[in-house]
Amino acid sequence: MFDPVEKLKEFVRCPSVSTDPRYKDGMRAAQGFVSGLLGSLGFAVEVVPTGLHPIILAQRAGEPGWPHIIIYGHYDVQPPDPLNLWKTPPFEPTEREGRLWGRGTADNKGPLMAHIAAVGRLLEKNPRVPLRLTFLIEGEEETGSPSFLPFLEKFSRRLDGDFVFLSDTGIPREDQAVVTCGLRGLTLCEVEVTGARMDLHSGLHGGVLRNPIQALAELCASLHTPDGRVNIPGYYDDVLEVEPWEREELGRLGTNEAEYREFLGIPAFHAPPGYTPFEAVRFLPTLEFNGIGGGYQGEGSKTVIPSKALVKISCRLVPNQTPQKIRPLLYAAIRERMPKDVTFRIIDQHDGMPYVVVPPGRSNTPRNQPPRLAQAFRALDAAATEVFGRAPLYLREGGSVPIIGDIKRVLGLDSVLFGLFLPQDNLHAPNESFNLRVMQKGSEVSERMLSTLAAG
Amino acid sequence: MFDPVEKLKEFVRCPSVSTDPRYKDGMRAAQGFVSGLLGSLGFAVEVVPTGLHPIILAQRAGEPGWPHIIIYGHYDVQPPDPLNLWKTPPFEPTEREGRLWGRGTADNKGPLMAHIAAVGRLLEKNPRVPLRLTFLIEGEEETGSPSFLPFLEKFSRRLDGDFVFLSDTGIPREDQAVVTCGLRGLTLCEVEVTGARMDLHSGLHGGVLRNPIQALAELCASLHTPDGRVNIPGYYDDVLEVEPWEREELGRLGTNEAEYREFLGIPAFHAPPGYTPFEAVRFLPTLEFNGIGGGYQGEGSKTVIPSKALVKISCRLVPNQTPQKIRPLLYAAIRERMPKDVTFRIIDQHDGMPYVVVPPGRSNTPRNQPPRLAQAFRALDAAATEVFGRAPLYLREGGSVPIIGDIKRVLGLDSVLFGLFLPQDNLHAPNESFNLRVMQKGSEVSERMLSTLAAG
Repeated sequence: MFDPVEKLKEFVRCPSVSTDPRYKDGMRAAQGFVSGLLGSLGFAVEVVPTGLHPIILAQRAGEPGWPHIIIYGHYDVQPPDPLNLWKTPPFEPTEREGRLWGRGTADNKGPLMAHIAAVGRLLEKNPRVPLRLTFLIEGEEETGSPSFLPFLEKFSRRLDGDFVFLSDTGIPREDQAVVTCGLRGLTLCEVEVTGARMDLHSGLHGGVLRNPIQALAELCASLHTPDGRVNIPGYYDDVLEVEPWEREELGRLGTNEAEYREFLGIPAFHAPPGYTPFEAVRFLPTLEFNGIGGGYQGEGSKTVIPSKALVKISCRLVPNQTPQKIRPLLYAAIRERMPKDVTFRIIDQHDGMPYVVVPPGRSNTPRNQPPRLAQAFRALDAAATEVFGRAPLYLREGGSVPIIGDIKRVLGLDSVLFGLFLPQDNLHAPNESFNLRVMQKGSEVSERMLSTLAAG
Repeated sequence: MFDPVEKLKEFVRCPSVSTDPRYKDGMRAAQGFVSGLLGSLGFAVEVVPTGLHPIILAQRAGEPGWPHIIIYGHYDVQPPDPLNLWKTPPFEPTEREGRLWGRGTADNKGPLMAHIAAVGRLLEKNPRVPLRLTFLIEGEEETGSPSFLPFLEKFSRRLDGDFVFLSDTGIPREDQAVVTCGLRGLTLCEVEVTGARMDLHSGLHGGVLRNPIQALAELCASLHTPDGRVNIPGYYDDVLEVEPWEREELGRLGTNEAEYREFLGIPAFHAPPGYTPFEAVRFLPTLEFNGIGGGYQGEGSKTVIPSKALVKISCRLVPNQTPQKIRPLLYAAIRERMPKDVTFRIIDQHDGMPYVVVPPGRSNTPRNQPPRLAQAFRALDAAATEVFGRAPLYLREGGSVPIIGDIKRVLGLDSVLFGLFLPQDNLHAPNESFNLRVMQKGSEVSERMLSTLAAG
């Protein structure tokens, strides 16, 4: 068997930034690396071309009656900028303090490697293990997976799995496993406001027209109520009721508000009434401003009335909201509230469906839950309890993995999400790293769960 | 005599951006150019060092009884950004359509050159003309003239003029001269808001804290009433009553609202009730947002909750408001209205006093107006009527020339402001240009006025 840490280093050395064409070679290297590794484990590897970065479809066939598990991962990573904040170069993986440092170590190369290593050991111990396995590894996750949905639709017959298994979510501490039971969705847009056709001298023209920054500020200020809720009619209509067991589970998280506030460095939280910050981030939708810009932002002053100003808005959605319903509500609010003495345009950006799955034995577990999904949850629970020394928590998470909702919709499959990121991992930020003990434990849990399923 | 247009081109080729240390050489070149030109006309030129950019003090001495006219100008210019919007490079002056294009052609190198050329011709025709003349040319006008006030205080004895003469204000059309009778003042600041200590993933943390962009939007939206007035208690307390003759004079401007709206390219004006756009810009104070920034502003999306957001605010003030009174009112409003779950700081920027001077023979002309100031107004009126083919208009202007208020306060001198900018000149914007026929006419008026004063 290969050494998973050494293999992970090789993987991280491929600078596979999907959003930036300058990293084309790195993308190709990462794709070749994964394909080769899975091929060496006996998988039939197909590299499926897309408009942008190919999807790797690696399958181990078997008897039709065997369980079929689809393991998802992605070989692309976030851009490493700002480079000057990295302590060691992002694409030269470095081991220290029990961690591997580098871009993509945690998101998602390390967790993916944990599962590949689990499968490798399983097949080494029992080359005839009665499992059908599919690795589905894309290269566009960090750009919103534009090719993934058409791929699913085209390859649905070969993706006749029992469930999807992946690690692309978080855990609170090294010794606390988490099974992620829900994800928020997304709907994104940009609003560009135009006042005069050109930048104006604020003395010669100030006082006659509405400044586009002012119009934008008025719009943005209108989108929340003072108590922190989104101020758009109908926004909360489809928000899924929180089950008492979900609040209880969250209560076992073991992080307190004072610590969290300290971590963020804020004077006070601003969660809507009736929700702790930990609940708000998981159970409620948001509307956030990700960026705003207009006019002079440099040193000192420039007394200009800018022609244009823009804001980037992202809404996180929870089950059972949908981008199809929320986007028109948002746009209607923008159109209605934007002052009439400016012009504006709304630029669509990507969407993602929220997702929820309920483990067996809960108040809201669906009666018709597929037996192999229920079996997987039970096997995972046992394995995680053994390896981590305590039962896993079943939590929804605030982040989004939009392809999970697409898989549910197109293939009808649920996902078993086993968290492996720690808060210290610096995902999407400089000095990303992955805890190698967590990687080892995650790989062990994965192997045990697959073994149990193979045993029938 | 030198060719004023060729000399102006030389002047514009010196990239004298005072706010940006990268243009240090350009500042030195511009300063050397002006000093040399005035020296060649026989002026005793002194380059007075300051903390930042030297002030050029060029004097032509004479009998104590002669009129002493101080001609003001500035050799610094605005930054040329955004560079990609210029049709020809900002510091390579280009003549086309009867205009000279380039940064600083209008503000203020062209108008200054018109006066230098006028003095040049006057001295050529009559080398013994009985006038004392001082050119006072600074290099920090575009950064708020921080060195000018201490300079005035130090050099007040040598600045024993009858009045100050300058062209740093506008005219509505090529054939309509304007004598500017008032200027707005300024008070500037920047507000920086901080949410969490670092940028956050909007999925993992969205919903627990107030986004600093949101806090800033709420603050900004609170600073105006829906009808376009500044929403700060006491803001309008000291605003000078408008005289009927001022509204009448403005009525003769000959620009209609439809044309002005078309020029700006806006769907509607937003002037406070009771004021036309032309009146609002001259007679009312404003509060404008000159720039706003925070988070991700690039292509596409990045689902971040930014740590910081900033806004740059400028208030234009009218007589008899003062920055000393308005700044505390503004800061109190910011402190009171900023949401308490973010932190913020206010960064002071520069101030400028508003200014008003009344020409002879009006309802509100001071009884004790100095005879040589009154004489200058009458001489200017006659010269402008002759050269432009119609009587000049006497108008207050929306822009600010803060040093005019300082001169009044420290030296006790009023200023005769002869407008030369056209609305098409794009001051402070890309594709600045100066109309060369206006330059020629302005120079002619200047020479005639000085001749009349010399004749006693």
